[in-house]
Amino acid sequence: MSNRVRYRVIYGDTDCGGVVYYGTYFRLFEIGRTELLRVSGLSYAEIEQKEGLILPVVEAHARYRAPARYDDELIIETNLVEVHPHKVRFEYLIQRGERLLVEGYTVHAPINREGKLVKFPARILQFLEGLVRSKISENNNE
Amino acid sequence: MSNRVRYRVIYGDTDCGGVVYYGTYFRLFEIGRTELLRVSGLSYAEIEQKEGLILPVVEAHARYRAPARYDDELIIETNLVEVHPHKVRFEYLIQRGERLLVEGYTVHAPINREGKLVKFPARILQFLEGLVRSKISENNNE
Amino acid sequence: MSNRVRYRVIYGDTDCGGVVYYGTYFRLFEIGRTELLRVSGLSYAEIEQKEGLILPVVEAHARYRAPARYDDELIIETNLVEVHPHKVRFEYLIQRGERLLVEGYTVHAPINREGKLVKFPARILQFLEGLVRSKISENNNE
Amino acid sequence: MSNRVRYRVIYGDTDCGGVVYYGTYFRLFEIGRTELLRVSGLSYAEIEQKEGLILPVVEAHARYRAPARYDDELIIETNLVEVHPHKVRFEYLIQRGERLLVEGYTVHAPINREGKLVKFPARILQFLEGLVRSKISENNNE
Repeated sequence: MSNRVRYRVIYGDTDCGGVVYYGTYFRLFEIGRTELLRVSGLSYAEIEQKEGLILPVVEAHARYRAPARYDDELIIETNLVEVHPHKVRFEYLIQRGERLLVEGYTVHAPINREGKLVKFPARILQFLEGLVRSKISENNNE
Repeated sequence: MSNRVRYRVIYGDTDCGGVVYYGTYFRLFEIGRTELLRVSGLSYAEIEQKEGLILPVVEAHARYRAPARYDDELIIETNLVEVHPHKVRFEYLIQRGERLLVEGYTVHAPINREGKLVKFPARILQFLEGLVRSKISENNNE
Repeated sequence: MSNRVRYRVIYGDTDCGGVVYYGTYFRLFEIGRTELLRVSGLSYAEIEQKEGLILPVVEAHARYRAPARYDDELIIETNLVEVHPHKVRFEYLIQRGERLLVEGYTVHAPINREGKLVKFPARILQFLEGLVRSKISENNNE
Repeated sequence: MSNRVRYRVIYGDTDCGGVVYYGTYFRLFEIGRTELLRVSGLSYAEIEQKEGLILPVVEAHARYRAPARYDDELIIETNLVEVHPHKVRFEYLIQRGERLLVEGYTVHAPINREGKLVKFPARILQFLEGLVRSKISENNNE
């Protein structure tokens, strides 16, 4: 499953190099994955409250190809690309128009309220696997 | 009671105007008041854990007189200036050397774990009042 | 002139008190005033590029009435309330549904590329004054 | 060359999961590399001003092993591990006491004031290569 969100760059996102601060993109990645889950029908807030799970980031990566600047309208494209019982992986593309500026990924592992690593409950796992498959099918249709 | 902390400006604190972002100073104010309490012997983490209180900000203000820039070494001076059963007030001066760049204040009200406004316990109140008096005495000695 | 923007709270906006960090609201105020200017037809980026002016914040204030939380959909209402040759003042209301959470204001003074305080050019001043009047008229019509 | 800086976690660094926000660590990495260069005698501000170079991040990565929390005193260890004419690589270890919490790296490529990728001037390149060698020698002496 793939999702696109628009984001307008503010002063608070930039640094004195005149461009978006490298750390800011991890906020944009969070916006992307939250909206992807919401659109899928399984919001992150719901996973937290109903299932008692949180999904901390265990790995994060970004490759910066070109700078974004103040007032740019960016597109955050998020893809859920891998689902395992103990982790999920999201990939991100940040674009301005057709131009790719930044790409990245995050890996998340489910933990319970006591902070222990757990497996996803079967229902959530199947739902997430369905999202990955729907993406593959969507891509085949293009 | 008055406390001074040094802080070195990083890229992440600045914006594309070439100066420190106006919202960043509220982070510096937090650094200042946390260190003032720590130095006083009553850390904020202790108030939270032992007393079950948190001290959310109910009001915040900053006046920007001159910009701070990347790599500046700033001095954050914090003063605890008012203590009431239901609130405390901190004042802040951000300087580069002798030059005043930003001044501000925050007002905080104690709430309990259920999020209800409460009075400070007598012990904490007396301690905080002592900090205000020690400041006045310190100023008189100058 | 008044403008309303929706904003969805992310983890990156919150703190370990479980609510939106007090400094985050100054980012939301920036989103609000930028969108108000854009909607008015005079974008901040345009003021910067065409007029060679920037509008640094000289004063900022927030009063926190109730906390916003993760995943809340907030409404940022911005009003341009005062225009003088040397400064403008914006006021902000942050709401969740009908509930007022935070209110604040910022005052901005125009400076030129050399960092000197200047007056707004007549054309910009008239435009901004028109925005304040259009707000008053809009309120009268309610 | 290796450098260690202490950092105290504030509320503004954390999120409503009760731990330091994953994006915050990229600020800590910046603090680490800036201080490493300053201690080496070649500050980043100097590279910018004297050489007309900036060193944007072209790649960033973090692996999160355990959470840091409010008020933790962290140690940011930074190592300059690779120097090439067109890029440098820093590695970071974030620890609380002896415990490793987060490890990461950033890769930076020098660009000039026009935003073009350039080679490091010979003087800077030799200096940076010297820093990598001094680290290796330092490690051999342990």
